Amino acid sequence: MDERSKKYIIDQKSDFQSDLGIINQEDLANAKIGQTLTTHLGKKFKVIKPSVNDFIELMDRRCSILIQKDIGTIISKCGIGSGSRIVDAGTGAGAIALNFGNIVGECGKVYSYEIREDFAEVAKSNIEKFGLDNIIEIKNKDIKEGIEENEIDLVFLDLMKPYEIFEDVYSCLNTGGYLAVYAPYIDQIETSYKIAKKIGFIDLSIIETLEREIEVRNQGTRPKTRMVGHSGYLMFGRKI
Amino acid sequence: MDERSKKYIIDQKSDFQSDLGIINQEDLANAKIGQTLTTHLGKKFKVIKPSVNDFIELMDRRCSILIQKDIGTIISKCGIGSGSRIVDAGTGAGAIALNFGNIVGECGKVYSYEIREDFAEVAKSNIEKFGLDNIIEIKNKDIKEGIEENEIDLVFLDLMKPYEIFEDVYSCLNTGGYLAVYAPYIDQIETSYKIAKKIGFIDLSIIETLEREIEVRNQGTRPKTRMVGHSGYLMFGRKI
Amino acid sequence: MDERSKKYIIDQKSDFQSDLGIINQEDLANAKIGQTLTTHLGKKFKVIKPSVNDFIELMDRRCSILIQKDIGTIISKCGIGSGSRIVDAGTGAGAIALNFGNIVGECGKVYSYEIREDFAEVAKSNIEKFGLDNIIEIKNKDIKEGIEENEIDLVFLDLMKPYEIFEDVYSCLNTGGYLAVYAPYIDQIETSYKIAKKIGFIDLSIIETLEREIEVRNQGTRPKTRMVGHSGYLMFGRKI
Amino acid sequence: MDERSKKYIIDQKSDFQSDLGIINQEDLANAKIGQTLTTHLGKKFKVIKPSVNDFIELMDRRCSILIQKDIGTIISKCGIGSGSRIVDAGTGAGAIALNFGNIVGECGKVYSYEIREDFAEVAKSNIEKFGLDNIIEIKNKDIKEGIEENEIDLVFLDLMKPYEIFEDVYSCLNTGGYLAVYAPYIDQIETSYKIAKKIGFIDLSIIETLEREIEVRNQGTRPKTRMVGHSGYLMFGRKI
Repeated sequence: MDERSKKYIIDQKSDFQSDLGIINQEDLANAKIGQTLTTHLGKKFKVIKPSVNDFIELMDRRCSILIQKDIGTIISKCGIGSGSRIVDAGTGAGAIALNFGNIVGECGKVYSYEIREDFAEVAKSNIEKFGLDNIIEIKNKDIKEGIEENEIDLVFLDLMKPYEIFEDVYSCLNTGGYLAVYAPYIDQIETSYKIAKKIGFIDLSIIETLEREIEVRNQGTRPKTRMVGHSGYLMFGRKI
Repeated sequence: MDERSKKYIIDQKSDFQSDLGIINQEDLANAKIGQTLTTHLGKKFKVIKPSVNDFIELMDRRCSILIQKDIGTIISKCGIGSGSRIVDAGTGAGAIALNFGNIVGECGKVYSYEIREDFAEVAKSNIEKFGLDNIIEIKNKDIKEGIEENEIDLVFLDLMKPYEIFEDVYSCLNTGGYLAVYAPYIDQIETSYKIAKKIGFIDLSIIETLEREIEVRNQGTRPKTRMVGHSGYLMFGRKI
Repeated sequence: MDERSKKYIIDQKSDFQSDLGIINQEDLANAKIGQTLTTHLGKKFKVIKPSVNDFIELMDRRCSILIQKDIGTIISKCGIGSGSRIVDAGTGAGAIALNFGNIVGECGKVYSYEIREDFAEVAKSNIEKFGLDNIIEIKNKDIKEGIEENEIDLVFLDLMKPYEIFEDVYSCLNTGGYLAVYAPYIDQIETSYKIAKKIGFIDLSIIETLEREIEVRNQGTRPKTRMVGHSGYLMFGRKI
Repeated sequence: MDERSKKYIIDQKSDFQSDLGIINQEDLANAKIGQTLTTHLGKKFKVIKPSVNDFIELMDRRCSILIQKDIGTIISKCGIGSGSRIVDAGTGAGAIALNFGNIVGECGKVYSYEIREDFAEVAKSNIEKFGLDNIIEIKNKDIKEGIEENEIDLVFLDLMKPYEIFEDVYSCLNTGGYLAVYAPYIDQIETSYKIAKKIGFIDLSIIETLEREIEVRNQGTRPKTRMVGHSGYLMFGRKI
């Protein structure tokens, strides 16, 4: 991070060049978290331990990204953790897959289906840069043609008609595993609910979350004037 | 889980006894996820892969538990994942620590401070039962006397006056690490914000999340009549 | 209002009897707002100027009452005031009609359709007691058989299938007049929107309002733990 | 309203001129609601019965206007109607006073205090144009120097430190009358609550309302992406 609070992702194998000057490769290779590096122009850069959110903020995004609050809800509702096995579709730029990969770690696995080749390429590149390519597998396939994995703990779907593959989802899940669906329209989520119920998913629930920011100003404290009114509905079901 | 959807945590070292009959120890020891076991009364039990939420639902709770939606928000906002190092206070029954432990896994660590001995004992017992005692360390200490760890990625505080230890929190964090505060009263969060700002935390934000359930009935679809209006505010800050 | 903050509606033509004693008719007939009356047992009663809400709180209610927040929204969105002419269906216990009648006053008029005879009787009785029977006309008729009024400023519908009579609503409205629909289910409101659009209503909008209470306690200030998550959606349209 | 849905307030004493042509004074003087007038250029204008909201939308606004949803809540919570007597401060451009005036009608009265002369002038002009100058009295005075009216049903305050005049408010109210306070900051409303309680107001409550719009699109139905997160808190109290 530079003196203007702008963040950078650094490749430690070559010199770093910016409008504030150059830091040579040797300094970068030896840099430790918390250390301050100085460019040949005397400008200072701080080495920070990046979080998955820093990375997603900086990465190549070609399509809209499911907002953070919904990711948190999915993770906590489904009890996802280190070692979990997750199937995710559609990948998009890979933001959700990165969040999942960051959590399941080396003992877990994320299989992410994306039908569009261009999105799949972007996602692959993003995941390699963050060093999670051994954990996350991007599959440039139509998930409607079949889920090739099994013993899955969570299947997360962000598709136009998620309910078309619920039977297949049911088959690939562990007993106790979860289905999570994200959909912006109430009609999509209503149909999803009815089909999931018919197939036999239990503990079905639909939720929406509203996140509001609070401002502390000199005059006093108050919620912000503008907020996000809707991202999408989330539906959850469980296989027993 | 029995035929009435009631869940049980099973100790595989002895026979399981319930009002629906007995399952002998041998069957339990060999049980696999998804299998159905039958009691001597012919009642059926399904073996499910438990999620951390199943466990928290069933465990010994002597104090109120921070609700799920806030846990998800903390995890996603702070980019916590496999391998993260977390300090948490106060522990209570250990629900938050269990959630964190489930995510950081074997490569990570959770240090959980609880001043009350009775709570610390309950939490220790809960954590052993879930098998996370190698990951989560319950410390029966007053966190105000000092944080003994360092290179921490997240300090989460659920205390009456969290701001009393913000200097100490700052010291123990990695560059790039997060402070997260949960507080039910606006006054607590306002003071926290002002002190965190003075100490030098950046990216300060305060949020509240509202979660609303949607019902799909035969007559139509609608949000539920009653909802939780407030659990607490969350404040986030980052060390750079 | 007695010493326990319990409110009463008094008939000034006879003695008032309660468990706190008797106030004789003469005292009641001469009572002025703000005065304190004393029973033969020495208990005190305060004479307050009743608001329409006091009355609705005390009146005979045989069916659920649309909650206050939605009434306020309808009045302000449709610019209803003294002198407005309103059609309302179904009446129920007459709470909505009373609110409208209280606002339109002697220069205005409220026509309230109720298909069920028992509800219509309750509503009539309630309206007489509050003295608005010259302003509000309760009609024990099925509004689907036709709206008999015209030059109406607002038609408010709280019916299962409000859209069945939108053509008739359009005919009876003033140019510039409003249609307002209350419906608990999203499916009802979606259909209403599509049909209203087809018929030619303009400025169509659908809203929902969430009302949250804040508590000031000694420990601090915070929103209440429980709140109403949903009463109904409101749809508005205008005839031009 | 012209063919582009643009609205105009017409002075019937002279010709109306616009970029779509001229309508002569004689036509305007005889125009009836619902009629279509044609300019010398052949463009059509529809005569609509204006609501108070049309007027507020078009009037001269020099300062921010309390949003509609809060006005509705105040009216319904305080049971305001035809004939009510209201004190209001500060006036601003007069939007709130216009809303109140529209409701209390000829039998009621609104006294609106505004300390700034320029605002008071704008408000006076707006109220004359809407023809409510016999109902609403704009007073270019500091309300802190005393409320000159009595037997008031509602005092509405939108001031920086509303609590400074609560004693005076209490004196001017009818027994059964209401105090309503609008304030954007939680600190203002907290202080208001404590002082109102000390003075003896009963039925104290603080609320905030969130209004969310729903969109019906071809793809489906959903809440809008953006919404207003906060306008202000409302505090209510009652004199008994």
